[in-house]
Amino acid sequence: MKSVMSRTFSNFFFEYETPRQVLVRNRRVAIVCRIIQMGVLSYIIGWVFMYEKGYQIVDTAISSVFTKMKGVSYTNISGEERIWDVADYVFPEQGDSSFVVMTNFISTVQQQDTCPELPDGKNKNACTSDADCDESKYKRTGNGYMTGKCNSSTSTCEIYSWCPVEDDRQIPDPPVLKTSENYTLFIKNSITFRQFNVVRSNLVESVDQNYINSCLYHPKTDPLCPIFRLGDIVERSSSNFSEIARVGGAMGVLIDWDCNLDLSLRHCKPKYEFYGLYGTGKNDKGERPSVGYNFRFAKYYVEDKVEKRKLLKVFGVRIDIIVHGRAGKFDIIPTLTAIGSGVGIFGVATVVCDVLLLYLLPKREFYKNMKFKHTELQEEKPTLSPSQKENELPK
Amino acid sequence: MKSVMSRTFSNFFFEYETPRQVLVRNRRVAIVCRIIQMGVLSYIIGWVFMYEKGYQIVDTAISSVFTKMKGVSYTNISGEERIWDVADYVFPEQGDSSFVVMTNFISTVQQQDTCPELPDGKNKNACTSDADCDESKYKRTGNGYMTGKCNSSTSTCEIYSWCPVEDDRQIPDPPVLKTSENYTLFIKNSITFRQFNVVRSNLVESVDQNYINSCLYHPKTDPLCPIFRLGDIVERSSSNFSEIARVGGAMGVLIDWDCNLDLSLRHCKPKYEFYGLYGTGKNDKGERPSVGYNFRFAKYYVEDKVEKRKLLKVFGVRIDIIVHGRAGKFDIIPTLTAIGSGVGIFGVATVVCDVLLLYLLPKREFYKNMKFKHTELQEEKPTLSPSQKENELPK
Amino acid sequence: MKSVMSRTFSNFFFEYETPRQVLVRNRRVAIVCRIIQMGVLSYIIGWVFMYEKGYQIVDTAISSVFTKMKGVSYTNISGEERIWDVADYVFPEQGDSSFVVMTNFISTVQQQDTCPELPDGKNKNACTSDADCDESKYKRTGNGYMTGKCNSSTSTCEIYSWCPVEDDRQIPDPPVLKTSENYTLFIKNSITFRQFNVVRSNLVESVDQNYINSCLYHPKTDPLCPIFRLGDIVERSSSNFSEIARVGGAMGVLIDWDCNLDLSLRHCKPKYEFYGLYGTGKNDKGERPSVGYNFRFAKYYVEDKVEKRKLLKVFGVRIDIIVHGRAGKFDIIPTLTAIGSGVGIFGVATVVCDVLLLYLLPKREFYKNMKFKHTELQEEKPTLSPSQKENELPK
Repeated sequence: MKSVMSRTFSNFFFEYETPRQVLVRNRRVAIVCRIIQMGVLSYIIGWVFMYEKGYQIVDTAISSVFTKMKGVSYTNISGEERIWDVADYVFPEQGDSSFVVMTNFISTVQQQDTCPELPDGKNKNACTSDADCDESKYKRTGNGYMTGKCNSSTSTCEIYSWCPVEDDRQIPDPPVLKTSENYTLFIKNSITFRQFNVVRSNLVESVDQNYINSCLYHPKTDPLCPIFRLGDIVERSSSNFSEIARVGGAMGVLIDWDCNLDLSLRHCKPKYEFYGLYGTGKNDKGERPSVGYNFRFAKYYVEDKVEKRKLLKVFGVRIDIIVHGRAGKFDIIPTLTAIGSGVGIFGVATVVCDVLLLYLLPKREFYKNMKFKHTELQEEKPTLSPSQKENELPK
Repeated sequence: MKSVMSRTFSNFFFEYETPRQVLVRNRRVAIVCRIIQMGVLSYIIGWVFMYEKGYQIVDTAISSVFTKMKGVSYTNISGEERIWDVADYVFPEQGDSSFVVMTNFISTVQQQDTCPELPDGKNKNACTSDADCDESKYKRTGNGYMTGKCNSSTSTCEIYSWCPVEDDRQIPDPPVLKTSENYTLFIKNSITFRQFNVVRSNLVESVDQNYINSCLYHPKTDPLCPIFRLGDIVERSSSNFSEIARVGGAMGVLIDWDCNLDLSLRHCKPKYEFYGLYGTGKNDKGERPSVGYNFRFAKYYVEDKVEKRKLLKVFGVRIDIIVHGRAGKFDIIPTLTAIGSGVGIFGVATVVCDVLLLYLLPKREFYKNMKFKHTELQEEKPTLSPSQKENELPK
Repeated sequence: MKSVMSRTFSNFFFEYETPRQVLVRNRRVAIVCRIIQMGVLSYIIGWVFMYEKGYQIVDTAISSVFTKMKGVSYTNISGEERIWDVADYVFPEQGDSSFVVMTNFISTVQQQDTCPELPDGKNKNACTSDADCDESKYKRTGNGYMTGKCNSSTSTCEIYSWCPVEDDRQIPDPPVLKTSENYTLFIKNSITFRQFNVVRSNLVESVDQNYINSCLYHPKTDPLCPIFRLGDIVERSSSNFSEIARVGGAMGVLIDWDCNLDLSLRHCKPKYEFYGLYGTGKNDKGERPSVGYNFRFAKYYVEDKVEKRKLLKVFGVRIDIIVHGRAGKFDIIPTLTAIGSGVGIFGVATVVCDVLLLYLLPKREFYKNMKFKHTELQEEKPTLSPSQKENELPK
């Protein structure tokens, strides 16, 4: 028993099996085969390894973004002069990655009271008598609760609401803060590739304090400057600034990091791209529903013991900073997986060549005999096998 | 030398090697083998290719979300009538993807002063004499800095703080803004698959301005309408609206894009799903710690030269719009990788069949001899080999 | 015709082909080969399967974060006592995953007026006569629109702006709210692995209401407590709290979920990590541009019919809660893909051994003859082949 085991063991370690092969000296088959094999090899090396970098593992970035707007606007609305600075026109104020720059607004000073609904032209709020206005009801598109009266001068229902009701039928044109085009946006972006323990900031080596103080982003001349003119962002998203400033719009600023960490970290640099969101861009053909970007914002105060608010319907440029970080680095696992798959595909090449050899060539029967050995005799004369077997076995 | 090289070269190009094989004419082995091979083949074709779409590369979406609430509520708190509109009840106001709709609140008008701490029932702030209240100290759960006095009427320490201290021991029931159930939420979502250069909006082809004006989301009848009733969102997250409205809760609205870009882009449509976060849903059994959702918010104003604030403890429905976008498209790399792996798995099938043939069949020794050729004689008679070799070599 | 098809069919099902192999009884080759094969095998089993868990499919978490600060600060600025609570120092107020805790500020009460620009030491706003100040122009670094006059006492241009202009040349030191170190942050995090239908909260089984009421995060003793001291977060990001509190800084709190769903869900627990963003950490050597974190925030009010605002230049700790969730679970596809690749790599091992056998061993020519069968004779004597073939064929 022991000797059987030790022989099995020694067989396993001292014997090596390798497939027997036929060398087919046939130019046509050989050339076709070599071409297929070289195609597979160059595909594996050229495409998988070099172009797609199949030997790398890939990590996606964790990122954090801080933004800061700069610039002031001056308005003169019916003689009332006013300066708007960053604390006035940015929502929210704390420098988020998604924020809105107010470019236009409708301002209404309101207090809780009763007043007639706005005649909206579509007769949604219209009434001819008190019977049209259900007391204590509320319409989905209404601004308050109906008192049950019909205001005869406006022909609309009277409501209890913040009064007077905001009149947003006319959007100011040109936009009130049209000089917002010149505001600048400063973006700080920090990314972390956890798997590789790499931290990068968009203020890369060549971007120092002096450069920041004076530069302005330009795709050709200053592709790394983190300061952007608002008008440029909108125009580069293929939108029209004066139109966007009037009705509002949403823009995406994409910070694209595509880093090859097999090279020096210095080559890991951001690329900035701009595009319109929600069909804001000119590229989107046809009428899209729900254009523009607006929201309502109120400043509350108490005047003569009465709570009042200044309601702003804000039209603005919403900017979403989107970070897309991807880094690759050599790793043994994907390399071996790619090689393994490659060897598998080599097997496919062999199969194709064999089909050619065994089924399409004129001398296919000859090659079949070279390649295959038949065992079917055995089944006809089973008695022969045991003796034959024993004889053939090495002793 | 040159002739050796040219011969090697011509050998390489004009010779083709293919493995020699034994054709085993044995039904049992053959049938088992074919079944295994067909299983592998149908697994590769059916599962990897058709079900998992292993021939596609996959990209994850970059997305941007804009939200807008609509609706008003009327309250009558001890005779004081008030209308609440969107500028009053949404935090933050600018239409973020994560926001809170106020459904209940405790309001306190405060100014900087000294006042007694709140008796909280657990005696955390209780005192019997001034000695219990350390001057200028601050307790982790306290609302201000202790002045060192013990207030005899409330039996709590006196503090310097925003006074009077907010009394949040009783949460208003029913919730103050319980009609918030009927508010509607409009969601605009734009996604970008960078790798495929595809931009989509949740306002797909069939959603036009007319439809938006009148529709309301329903999973069966209006699955693409981007307008949602707040009460529906909460109920579909398997939560109870009146309970959530009272203490607050967090809901996730998932916009799920699973696009097959090998088909027309029109088929790339969002699916909306709703679920409770932080154990808000009914599905979470048992007592969970820290239920509800609330935060404090202050409106500041100056009255009679004194800075005051109206502190709101806001209970509300927090809604997180989460976008999960995934698109697949045919690509040669994953296709070949899948095929390569498939050929590799075919190799496994052959190994299994060989084990069957060589170790389990009664006639295994015969098949072993057919499959293997031994070289061990060589080591015994090394002198024979060179001559033999030369003779067999083609000249 | 039918018989040909049926024979082909029966051949396919009843015949099984397996490669013929040479058993090379050569210790050196065999041992080298077995070592290579065992290396490949142990790599596949040990590394791909056990370490990298190549048999699992991986899903990334969708997550939602809610935060709540606690704590009050007392300040006494030139005799004016004041208490700061959470509604005063957190921006934004609603418990977002990214927020700022104010630790220092410069406060300025302003109204729309004319006033001289701030002398900034770099002479950017300096003037000697009215000619230096272009009327109605605006400087990129300026705070308003120039009136065209030069203020003689400050030697700077007069501007129309929110006046007086904020003087931020001196940042208060020590920071005004330096006791902010003791504020606590409570984090609620809910993650969803959609592919596996798993929802988890960072309030795991062992974190109950009692524990939350009293615990404080510590990496060794309380690694699961979701309550963090602000000072600890900053110090653990290898930053200096008093410095960060003065000029501001950004910190990342990473919640890392790495779950093996083949085990019980109870083992799926978060890990908290802290790091400085934008070069805030001590690890970043050298002068980095644009240090600190600040933004401007205004509270508006009306006093004596004049709109005023209290502008705060807020320096603070910005905290970004970043969730990194990853879960793996056994799945047949990656398992088979890994096995397939493994078999492919086994093929590489065979190729290496064959090179050794056929090109490096002294007896290589002998082995070549054992392994290869030549067909080239055939091309010289094509007439021989049919008869030979027929003879060799079993009858």
